Amino acid sequence: MPGALFPSSVIARKRDGFALTRGEIAFFVKGATDGSWADYQLSAMLMAIYLRGMTPAETTELTSAVVNSGRVADLSGIRAPKVDKHSTGGVGDKISLHLAPMVAACGACVPMVSGRGLGHTGGTLDKLESIPGFRVNLSLAEFAAQAASLGLAMMGQTRELAPADRKLYALRDMTATIDCDPLICASIMGKKLAEGIDALVLDVKFGRGAFMPTKARARQLAEAMVGIGRSMRKPVRAVLTAMDQPLGRTVGNALEVVESIEFLHGSGPADVEEVTFVLGEQMLLLSGVAADAGEARRRLRDSIASGAAWAKFRAAVAAQGGDVAAIDDPSRLPRARLQVPLVHARGGCVRSADALEIAQASLRLGAGRARADEPVDPAVGISHLVKVGEWVPPGSSLCTIHASDEDSLADARRTLEEAIKLGDEPIAAPRLIEEIIWRRCPVRRARLPFAPIPASPPAAARRPRKARD
Amino acid sequence: MPGALFPSSVIARKRDGFALTRGEIAFFVKGATDGSWADYQLSAMLMAIYLRGMTPAETTELTSAVVNSGRVADLSGIRAPKVDKHSTGGVGDKISLHLAPMVAACGACVPMVSGRGLGHTGGTLDKLESIPGFRVNLSLAEFAAQAASLGLAMMGQTRELAPADRKLYALRDMTATIDCDPLICASIMGKKLAEGIDALVLDVKFGRGAFMPTKARARQLAEAMVGIGRSMRKPVRAVLTAMDQPLGRTVGNALEVVESIEFLHGSGPADVEEVTFVLGEQMLLLSGVAADAGEARRRLRDSIASGAAWAKFRAAVAAQGGDVAAIDDPSRLPRARLQVPLVHARGGCVRSADALEIAQASLRLGAGRARADEPVDPAVGISHLVKVGEWVPPGSSLCTIHASDEDSLADARRTLEEAIKLGDEPIAAPRLIEEIIWRRCPVRRARLPFAPIPASPPAAARRPRKARD
Repeated sequence: MPGALFPSSVIARKRDGFALTRGEIAFFVKGATDGSWADYQLSAMLMAIYLRGMTPAETTELTSAVVNSGRVADLSGIRAPKVDKHSTGGVGDKISLHLAPMVAACGACVPMVSGRGLGHTGGTLDKLESIPGFRVNLSLAEFAAQAASLGLAMMGQTRELAPADRKLYALRDMTATIDCDPLICASIMGKKLAEGIDALVLDVKFGRGAFMPTKARARQLAEAMVGIGRSMRKPVRAVLTAMDQPLGRTVGNALEVVESIEFLHGSGPADVEEVTFVLGEQMLLLSGVAADAGEARRRLRDSIASGAAWAKFRAAVAAQGGDVAAIDDPSRLPRARLQVPLVHARGGCVRSADALEIAQASLRLGAGRARADEPVDPAVGISHLVKVGEWVPPGSSLCTIHASDEDSLADARRTLEEAIKLGDEPIAAPRLIEEIIWRRCPVRRARLPFAPIPASPPAAARRPRKARD
Repeated sequence: MPGALFPSSVIARKRDGFALTRGEIAFFVKGATDGSWADYQLSAMLMAIYLRGMTPAETTELTSAVVNSGRVADLSGIRAPKVDKHSTGGVGDKISLHLAPMVAACGACVPMVSGRGLGHTGGTLDKLESIPGFRVNLSLAEFAAQAASLGLAMMGQTRELAPADRKLYALRDMTATIDCDPLICASIMGKKLAEGIDALVLDVKFGRGAFMPTKARARQLAEAMVGIGRSMRKPVRAVLTAMDQPLGRTVGNALEVVESIEFLHGSGPADVEEVTFVLGEQMLLLSGVAADAGEARRRLRDSIASGAAWAKFRAAVAAQGGDVAAIDDPSRLPRARLQVPLVHARGGCVRSADALEIAQASLRLGAGRARADEPVDPAVGISHLVKVGEWVPPGSSLCTIHASDEDSLADARRTLEEAIKLGDEPIAAPRLIEEIIWRRCPVRRARLPFAPIPASPPAAARRPRKARD
C-alpha cells in the first residue's frame, strides 16, 4: 500500500464514509491484535463503523482479517467434512448440546467453538460446564486431535483463535457498538471460520428474546453472513427462527443439559425437535453427508434411535474430563436447593411466555451473568415451562422455579407471573422456522466419499435414562 | 436524574442521535475528568458526537461542564473588566503577543491562557518561551495575582483549569475527532471561560493555513461560539479573518516575538495592524472600556504612542521571569545559525504565499511540532516574507530562511519555492477581515466606572528599539 498508514487517518476515512481498502482493514485488525492501536482508537473506529456502515466487500475483508489475526485450526488431516452451527443467541437455546453429537454421529466432523452467556442469552459453554469436570478450555491442538478422533469437540474461544475478535468484542460491549451488522458478521464468521470448517449453518433468531428485534433485521444480518460465506467460498446457510418464547421447557444451565440428554434419548418438546431437525438437515446437506432433506432427516432420526448420537455426546464428555456418571444419571447434575412450582389458580390457554422476561427471571436466579466476569450458578433456572397455545388446567403450574434462596425465588416468581400470560380463547402455537437463507456457493462435494469418523464404542450407548425431577 | 447512568447507555443515546440531557453530559465530562469512563468509552462518545452532532443547548451544557470540571480563576477582586481574545490558529499569528498588552494598557484586565503550536499552527506559549527565562506554567494563584497587579498575565493551561478538556483534546487528537464544531466550541469556550473573564473576542480563521477551510465553516463555528456565550451570559464576538497567507512577515517563535516587539514600538505590516486593531476594538467595546469603535481605536493607538503598551508587555515579561534585556535588545533573542535569503531571479508580483506550505517549511526547520510532546527550536523560521500583491524586483528575496543546519535549510527552501508564486500581472492585496459576528447579549456595564490597573512604571517604557537582522 502507498505511504505509511496512521490509525487516525484510517479512522478519519471511515468517519467520512469511505469504504476502507483491504490494507486499511488489515492495519486496523492488526492494531487490535498486537496492541499497535490504542483501545481508544479501536473504539473510535468501531463507532465510526457503527454509524457509517461497511460495504459487503469491506465486511468480507474484515472477517478475513479477523480469521487471520490468529491461528486457524488445522483439521486438514480429517477426511470427513467439517461443519458447524452457530446461533445468534436466545433463551433456552440448548440445541448445540444435542445437535452437534447427532451430526457427528451421522459422519460429519463438528469442531464447535462456543461462547458464554451474557445478559439475557445463555451460552453453550456455561451449560457444558454444569457437567462436573467438563473442560471447555482445550488447546487448539487438543481440539483438533479430538475432532479427528471423535468427530466432535466443543470448546471456548482460545487466545489463539481470532484474537482480534476477543479484543474488539470486549470493547464493543463497553462502547455501545454491539448491534452493528458488519461487526456482528465479522465477529461470528471470523471465529467460526477460524475453526477450520468447510460449511456453516446459522440460526439467526429474532423476537423478544433475540438480539434482532424483527424478522427484517434478522434477514438482513443472515443475508450479510451468507454473502460473506460465498465471498470466502464457504457454503453458509442461515435459518431464521422466532425467539419470542424460550426454546423448549427449560432455561438454566444444568436444566438445559438435562433437556438435551432427554432429547438424545428420544424425547423432547416439539419446538426443540423442529429447530434441531431443520438445522441438522442443513448441516448434513451443506457438508454433503446427505443428498437431500429426506435422507438427512432419516439419518438424524437414526442417530438418536441407534444410540449413536448419545454415544457421541457421552464420548465427548468423557474426552473433555466431564463426569459421565452425571450425564448417565442426570439427578447427579447440580440441583438447586429450592424447587417450587408456579401455580396458576384459574388456568387458561397460554397466550404468551415472554422470552426476555423469563430470561431476566433466570438471570435473577443466578443462571446468567450481567457482566462478562461474573460466575453463573449451574443449578438454578426454570423447568417444565408451558408453551404458547397449551391449556393450563386450574391450579396447575406454569413452570418450576429452581432457586438457591428465598429472595431470588420471590424475585423470579414476580417476574414470571408477569411474563406468562393466560387467556380464555384458544391460540395456535406460533410459527418457529421462518425462512432459510442461502446463496448458490460451490460446495466441495469432491471430498465425497469420505471416511466417516467411527462412533465411539457402542458399549457406552443407550444407558438407561433417569428422570430428573 | 432517574435511575443510574452507565457510560454505554449514554454513548448509545448519542449514537442513536438523541440530544443528551444535562445530567448525561455532566456524567460524560465527569468521566473524562475523574477517569470513571475508560478512554475507549470517551473516544466512542467523541466519535458519536462527531457523527451525530449536538444541538446548541447540548453544546452549551458541554461547555459549562468543561468549565466546571476544574477550578475557575477567581478574578472577582479585580474591578477592571476582564477580557480575552482567542484565535482558532493560523500561521504567523503573533497578534496576542502585542494585543494583550495594548488592551491591558487601555485599562482592561487580560488574563490570557494560551496553547502550544501543533502541526502547521503556531502557539503563543512557544513564542513567549523564546524569551529566555519566560515562565508560562504559573499556578492559578500566581496567574490571578499577576492579573490583579498588572492587568496582564499569560500562561498555559494548568491541571486546575478545565481538566476535562485536556483529556478530551488528547483523545480527539488521536481519534480523528478534532474537526467537530460542538467539541471545538466546548474546548475553546470551556478553557476561556475558566479564565474568569467577562467577555471574549474570537479570531476565527479560514483558508489554507486555518483549521476551517472555508468561510462558511468558519462562520458556522463562530456563530456556535457566540451563541454559547450568549446562553452563558458572557458577551462574545467573533471576527472572521482570512488565513491564506501568513499573518505579517515572520513565521517562527523568536522571529514572531521580534515582529510583535516592533509593533509595540510603532511599526508593523499592514495586515498585522489591521487584525490587531479590529480585534482590539472589539475587546475594548465588549469590555466597556470604550464607548465606540473610534474611541477604542484612539485608545489603542495611544497605548502604543505613549509607550504604555510596551511598558505593560515589558512588565509582564519581567513578572514571569523573562529576560527583559532580550526584549529590549531583540538581537539577544535566540538566533539561528544560518540566515539565508530566498532570491527570486526574475521577480514579479506575488500571486500567492501559501500559508499551509510555508507553515510546513517552518515545521521542517524545527519551529513547530508534529506531535504534542516534541520540542520546538525557538530560533528558526522565516522572516522578511513578501505579501500577496507586492512587487518583487528581479534578484530580490522572497523571504529570509533561518535554519539550524544545511539539510533543513535545503528542505525548507524547496517547500518555499513552491509555496510563493509570482506573476507578471498586478494583483490586489486580498481581503483580510470578512465579518464580525455577534449577538445581542447583556454586557455587564454596571461594573463601570472601574479602576484601571495602573501601568507599570514609565521608567521601563520606550527603550530604544534595535533592529534584529
